[in-house]
Amino acid sequence: MAAVEGGVPTRIMVAVNESTIKGYPHASISSMGAFDWTLKKIIRSNTSGFKILLIHVQVPDEDGFDDMDSIFASPEDFKRMKHRDKIRGLHLLEYFVHKCHEIGVACEAWVKKGDPKEVICFEAKRVQPDFIVVGSRGLNPFQKVFVGTVSEFCIKHADCPVIAIKRSTAQTPQDPVDD
Amino acid sequence: MAAVEGGVPTRIMVAVNESTIKGYPHASISSMGAFDWTLKKIIRSNTSGFKILLIHVQVPDEDGFDDMDSIFASPEDFKRMKHRDKIRGLHLLEYFVHKCHEIGVACEAWVKKGDPKEVICFEAKRVQPDFIVVGSRGLNPFQKVFVGTVSEFCIKHADCPVIAIKRSTAQTPQDPVDD
Repeated sequence: MAAVEGGVPTRIMVAVNESTIKGYPHASISSMGAFDWTLKKIIRSNTSGFKILLIHVQVPDEDGFDDMDSIFASPEDFKRMKHRDKIRGLHLLEYFVHKCHEIGVACEAWVKKGDPKEVICFEAKRVQPDFIVVGSRGLNPFQKVFVGTVSEFCIKHADCPVIAIKRSTAQTPQDPVDD
Repeated sequence: MAAVEGGVPTRIMVAVNESTIKGYPHASISSMGAFDWTLKKIIRSNTSGFKILLIHVQVPDEDGFDDMDSIFASPEDFKRMKHRDKIRGLHLLEYFVHKCHEIGVACEAWVKKGDPKEVICFEAKRVQPDFIVVGSRGLNPFQKVFVGTVSEFCIKHADCPVIAIKRSTAQTPQDPVDD
């Protein structure tokens, strides 16, 4: 067993999502942290040794609160709404893909809809990354009961190793549930 | 933010322990797996970009079962026993340090006594690695109640990110509690 020269790159799945505090199309603090950490601590200068698989899971907006000021009068309106969601997801991924290209590390990116924790595990089973990097808000046990955490679920249920990167204290917003 | 060229290497703490099935001084299946995974998937050919911090925590043999066939007749006997424990720990680390030198990746190694999960977290706070890699037997929930798991405790309590590497099914011994 020796360290690998060349060969198949290590495939890292990085789960990214939108911020709940900053407007469209900003990435969340924790997913930016996880992505930056992966570049700085794992990939470093060895850009040809890795491939980043960026996944963004959109939660279907069942409450419709986002659209409270919209009027839906025709099937076209719904089509437009779906189109807008798609654009938001693509904009988010564009940010990360752009960074990958700047640095010269290969990447793939895609959007899925559903419950993020379950979709991440499902997609990990499908594309078989070497490991998953996921951001974590580092909530306390009380907050976790009400909010749930994607990282803990993935650590328990994903088929591959998972590394959760917590936000630093300096980056934690006033309400730690925000991200 | 760009991938790092040169600079301070990424410091990876790898926790290693002795096998419960093979005789002295073999490493456990899960810690060998975690170490090999780190070389193959993270360090790859970028040996100058990383430093491995090898920690081995020896559990004090309070039951004394290991020494049931020994007779302790003098203070010298106890000294010899302690000396033997030390040698066992050093032999284990020697195996990993030798591999690091072969590959050309910098390393440090040390032995501590105590409860592995607590000592690993304490040492991580002290030496501040960028992340910890720890092997995991991948026990089922029922087995965990009786055996306890080092990896889950570290994921919850360590100050830095932790990645647990599960043994593959092919490597799991007949009794999965063995390692």
